[in-house]
Amino acid sequence: MIKVGIIGGSGYGGSELLRLLLFHPQVDIKLVTANEHAGKRVDAVHPNLAKLTDLIFAPTNDEHNFAELDCVFLALPHGQAMELVPKLPQSVKIIDLSGDFRLNDAEVFKEFYGREHTAMQVQSEFVYGLTEVKRQQIKEATRIANPGCFATALELGLYPFIASGLATGKIIADLKTGSSGSGAKPAAGTHHPKRANSFYAYKIFAHQHQPEVEQLLTTANKDWQQDSTLVMQTHSLPTVRGIFASIYFTTRVAMTTDEIGGLMRDFYANEFFIRFAKGSPDINWVKHTNFVDLSWAVSGDTVIVFVALDNLVKGASGQAVQNMNLMFGIEERTGLVMAGSNP
Amino acid sequence: MIKVGIIGGSGYGGSELLRLLLFHPQVDIKLVTANEHAGKRVDAVHPNLAKLTDLIFAPTNDEHNFAELDCVFLALPHGQAMELVPKLPQSVKIIDLSGDFRLNDAEVFKEFYGREHTAMQVQSEFVYGLTEVKRQQIKEATRIANPGCFATALELGLYPFIASGLATGKIIADLKTGSSGSGAKPAAGTHHPKRANSFYAYKIFAHQHQPEVEQLLTTANKDWQQDSTLVMQTHSLPTVRGIFASIYFTTRVAMTTDEIGGLMRDFYANEFFIRFAKGSPDINWVKHTNFVDLSWAVSGDTVIVFVALDNLVKGASGQAVQNMNLMFGIEERTGLVMAGSNP
Amino acid sequence: MIKVGIIGGSGYGGSELLRLLLFHPQVDIKLVTANEHAGKRVDAVHPNLAKLTDLIFAPTNDEHNFAELDCVFLALPHGQAMELVPKLPQSVKIIDLSGDFRLNDAEVFKEFYGREHTAMQVQSEFVYGLTEVKRQQIKEATRIANPGCFATALELGLYPFIASGLATGKIIADLKTGSSGSGAKPAAGTHHPKRANSFYAYKIFAHQHQPEVEQLLTTANKDWQQDSTLVMQTHSLPTVRGIFASIYFTTRVAMTTDEIGGLMRDFYANEFFIRFAKGSPDINWVKHTNFVDLSWAVSGDTVIVFVALDNLVKGASGQAVQNMNLMFGIEERTGLVMAGSNP
Amino acid sequence: MIKVGIIGGSGYGGSELLRLLLFHPQVDIKLVTANEHAGKRVDAVHPNLAKLTDLIFAPTNDEHNFAELDCVFLALPHGQAMELVPKLPQSVKIIDLSGDFRLNDAEVFKEFYGREHTAMQVQSEFVYGLTEVKRQQIKEATRIANPGCFATALELGLYPFIASGLATGKIIADLKTGSSGSGAKPAAGTHHPKRANSFYAYKIFAHQHQPEVEQLLTTANKDWQQDSTLVMQTHSLPTVRGIFASIYFTTRVAMTTDEIGGLMRDFYANEFFIRFAKGSPDINWVKHTNFVDLSWAVSGDTVIVFVALDNLVKGASGQAVQNMNLMFGIEERTGLVMAGSNP
Repeated sequence: MIKVGIIGGSGYGGSELLRLLLFHPQVDIKLVTANEHAGKRVDAVHPNLAKLTDLIFAPTNDEHNFAELDCVFLALPHGQAMELVPKLPQSVKIIDLSGDFRLNDAEVFKEFYGREHTAMQVQSEFVYGLTEVKRQQIKEATRIANPGCFATALELGLYPFIASGLATGKIIADLKTGSSGSGAKPAAGTHHPKRANSFYAYKIFAHQHQPEVEQLLTTANKDWQQDSTLVMQTHSLPTVRGIFASIYFTTRVAMTTDEIGGLMRDFYANEFFIRFAKGSPDINWVKHTNFVDLSWAVSGDTVIVFVALDNLVKGASGQAVQNMNLMFGIEERTGLVMAGSNP
Repeated sequence: MIKVGIIGGSGYGGSELLRLLLFHPQVDIKLVTANEHAGKRVDAVHPNLAKLTDLIFAPTNDEHNFAELDCVFLALPHGQAMELVPKLPQSVKIIDLSGDFRLNDAEVFKEFYGREHTAMQVQSEFVYGLTEVKRQQIKEATRIANPGCFATALELGLYPFIASGLATGKIIADLKTGSSGSGAKPAAGTHHPKRANSFYAYKIFAHQHQPEVEQLLTTANKDWQQDSTLVMQTHSLPTVRGIFASIYFTTRVAMTTDEIGGLMRDFYANEFFIRFAKGSPDINWVKHTNFVDLSWAVSGDTVIVFVALDNLVKGASGQAVQNMNLMFGIEERTGLVMAGSNP
Repeated sequence: MIKVGIIGGSGYGGSELLRLLLFHPQVDIKLVTANEHAGKRVDAVHPNLAKLTDLIFAPTNDEHNFAELDCVFLALPHGQAMELVPKLPQSVKIIDLSGDFRLNDAEVFKEFYGREHTAMQVQSEFVYGLTEVKRQQIKEATRIANPGCFATALELGLYPFIASGLATGKIIADLKTGSSGSGAKPAAGTHHPKRANSFYAYKIFAHQHQPEVEQLLTTANKDWQQDSTLVMQTHSLPTVRGIFASIYFTTRVAMTTDEIGGLMRDFYANEFFIRFAKGSPDINWVKHTNFVDLSWAVSGDTVIVFVALDNLVKGASGQAVQNMNLMFGIEERTGLVMAGSNP
Repeated sequence: MIKVGIIGGSGYGGSELLRLLLFHPQVDIKLVTANEHAGKRVDAVHPNLAKLTDLIFAPTNDEHNFAELDCVFLALPHGQAMELVPKLPQSVKIIDLSGDFRLNDAEVFKEFYGREHTAMQVQSEFVYGLTEVKRQQIKEATRIANPGCFATALELGLYPFIASGLATGKIIADLKTGSSGSGAKPAAGTHHPKRANSFYAYKIFAHQHQPEVEQLLTTANKDWQQDSTLVMQTHSLPTVRGIFASIYFTTRVAMTTDEIGGLMRDFYANEFFIRFAKGSPDINWVKHTNFVDLSWAVSGDTVIVFVALDNLVKGASGQAVQNMNLMFGIEERTGLVMAGSNP
């Protein structure tokens, strides 16, 4: 059994890690922490888990015997993982769900996250955990920077076209997310009376996942930005769950829908969690699961790729578990094969 | 023109007062206040009002020349109106949307609102503003305690049966409200990810509108509680707008649906804002309006009365404007005749 | 492995049976049928199941070799199971999710379902499948009439009080359901523009689950209706999932909250799927699971019992699987231990 | 008073025409028709209008004395207006809310609407009713082809940039609409259990509003398509109301945000119904009103224009009334100055 700790278990990332790991046949959750909820039963904060666990939240900031653990998931607000990671023993594998270790450029980090990076010396130990693309490196990694929710959608949709050099010019990524992406803490943007009937753009030209996506795509094709630019714009949906990406780009030569389909099907031929949707994917069909639903359409030299995933599963905790499975040499799907519901 | 002040204009009560009063043909809004938003344009806080007003929020706690005003609406959190009212000149008519002056018993107030009442000496100047029932007193009043949202629904549904002495035994009022009833400030109960798929009971056996309803019904029939008890239970709906009440009671003698209907139609014969729905009312048909939709059903000696209204209009700001119209001797419907939308 | 057939797999009952049974470790789905979708892949109708099954819908009305099956689930519209059941071999265990075989009185059936019962001769072979209450009979049964969604909530909330003779007088059950309870076929009441902001009562004094509940409660206490009456009223919630019941009744003697709690805890002491919620249950915490969350409150001689469950799981397909487990002598929870999500 | 007929008053376009015209101080509704609801009171179909009208639906297909009317609104499904228009007397002004008379090319009509145009001989009598752009022609028109909902959003966002020749290359318009855009008739795509948690693309590369937008933009700049292409993609939002457009394009030369702002503010300087939002517009702030909220952002040579409007008001019935006002020489805003609500 893998002895696991979840640091920051009261937010939505932690909530989903608990939902998945409590049923993972090879995981034993030894530690789960919280701040204001420290001392409470986990099911007092997550009533969905009543009858399923007797765990109690330990205080996040106490001393913990991390050396007893095999794997630690960090589900903390941005900026806290970089405080904690240098204190953790090398023997413990780390999967960080925050943005702290995704970027390898301290200046870019500061620009997008609005703070100095205080642990850049260990950033290079982190492998970027986009499972389908970085599987071999993840298997050998001891530290994973788990991708952002928007980034996962955008990267999986674009990677085959960047790697093959087919995309050129401006890539327009119009992105939409449900309210759970803003976390468990009440705020103006997630106040029900306002959010329930709303749709709006936010972080205009300024989302922190943009440099993460550009960095990942550069590992696919170091020259892609010579004649291509990524424009990514995020919007707020009045659903709880889901990321939907509409990605528009120009191909170097006009291609048929079948040719695009062939490329995608080849690229993701053996990927269990990648599904190809008829027409358009729908966030309704991926909710609560680790699946990514993709489709595409072509008109002349214009391609649209549509991507739907659950921001808290494939966009966060599900992919984190997928990465843990690889790091510990167990079957990648373990604990993640589950159906969403209709309706 | 009636010179009006709105004290507390940034919350939802104030927001709806602004929406209604900006279009009221006999009202001139001279003052609108806020705390944290003081100094901002009103349409910066209420973007729905852009192009419709150039008003700016004055600080709530500044000295204002209230004597220049004809009417002041207090749309403040519970407990603040009782601080302010004693400082207001007698020449200004007051309509208080909070619960501060609804109850005439200081002990009951303390029990349900959790604080000492500090201005009980002026409470008797207030008329309870359930328009359809207290019209004559409202016309002569200078101070109005505007009814609560649940209370309005429950009182309008029950009054004919209490006044006529028909209801007996336990009256069960199962009440449901949309999220706007919790106000404009983000909180755990109105966090979109939680609220969007939820339904739950709250303030179990303990809602502060209960004594207000009992007090009002006693004015209909001072002995009604000799053989009758009100059980009222509130629940949270995942809509933004709306109160729905299902009121169950026993009649002293079995009555037909037509007899019940006759009683209701007689009682509310000339009431423009009371509508009788076929089958069940639906909060969808009253949203954004001052209408109250009622229906009833009978089986043996059991009656169910259904009531739907918009918690922020007939349940708060709309009824407040209706009362202002009466107090100033103008047509009661002025500024309030508007259609909700389908859908 | 239990060889299973699902007759009527394209609706929501069938959809949830598929979601559960595809992952059930002792079930092999040999047959799944549909009418208009016959010939299609299951995941074309239920895209949530893509990558999880290659099953294809057989035509419901074809001849099937039922004798090869161990268990057949009937997830058909009301009135169709009674056509099919007499044609099925006695060797096949049957679990009917419709209302066709729940009532043992043909007259009552006709009154509430609006049609003659054509297979009353086999009705007595059916055991009413309220698992927690009828466990022993279910274990020995070959035919199960699976309870209705509202009925399950109401029966589980009331049974301890009827069995113990504590409840007296009028029992008021105010019931609310999400839109999935109306099935997969588009209709006026589930048209999104209308339903999304609505709340209303329906089937006033006339829901077909009422006689089912009365019949079940009579097995707890044959005399309960001598001094007690059930008033049950159903309402439509603008959620997709969930039943919430607020049940009000009078106790023969005043009891404390602790005494009520003791009764409930004793009665459901060993029931895994019954959970006791703090304050109020919430449909948000039971969605997609077989759990039933209960709480209660007492004031004088008035008790309120709150019940929340997922109408499609414990209220339909989940309880059906729970019953199948019992009928085949395997652990009752098999395939049903899963967490809902937060949020 | 303008004597008005509404042909097709039971759908959502008709519903909103009724909501607006019943309160229009210079309109007298003489005729409102329906098919299946013929003979019913209008408020039986639109319960939001109870107490506000005693109108009764006449049968759409009866002979009506149209010559007595001053203005007829056609709110019929696509394909029916072209049957009716040739039969209407020239003396009656016509405002058609369908797509029947928007396109001046019969081949394009056939391609996008899937049917032959049967009244192309009268199409040239129709003026395209994008009020802010075609005001002078509308004033002199006797027949108006009222713009589509998506088209209105896209055209108002793009027109200043096409007219000025600033936009070049591919224009990507990512469009989202609420469920009311699909009309009042229940269908799979608007089934509440499916729609409530969904987001998906539809009519991929194939929405019928595309040629309408291209035709309108060509009146701004006949050569715009020489070096520019419009890519427009529509998506379904789980709200009831609202269109949100995110429009991405490249400027011929890099411009600052202020320069873009100057262009927009100049272009729409005197337009009451055009508002400029801070940050992003939000469909929540325009719902139920004729306002169009716009904002923009610039990064290098990339511009994003955001547009929010209510699909049934400015996107249909509100703009139709605005056009009627112009055609009859009365103040353009008459009957349309109203606030949406917060929340």
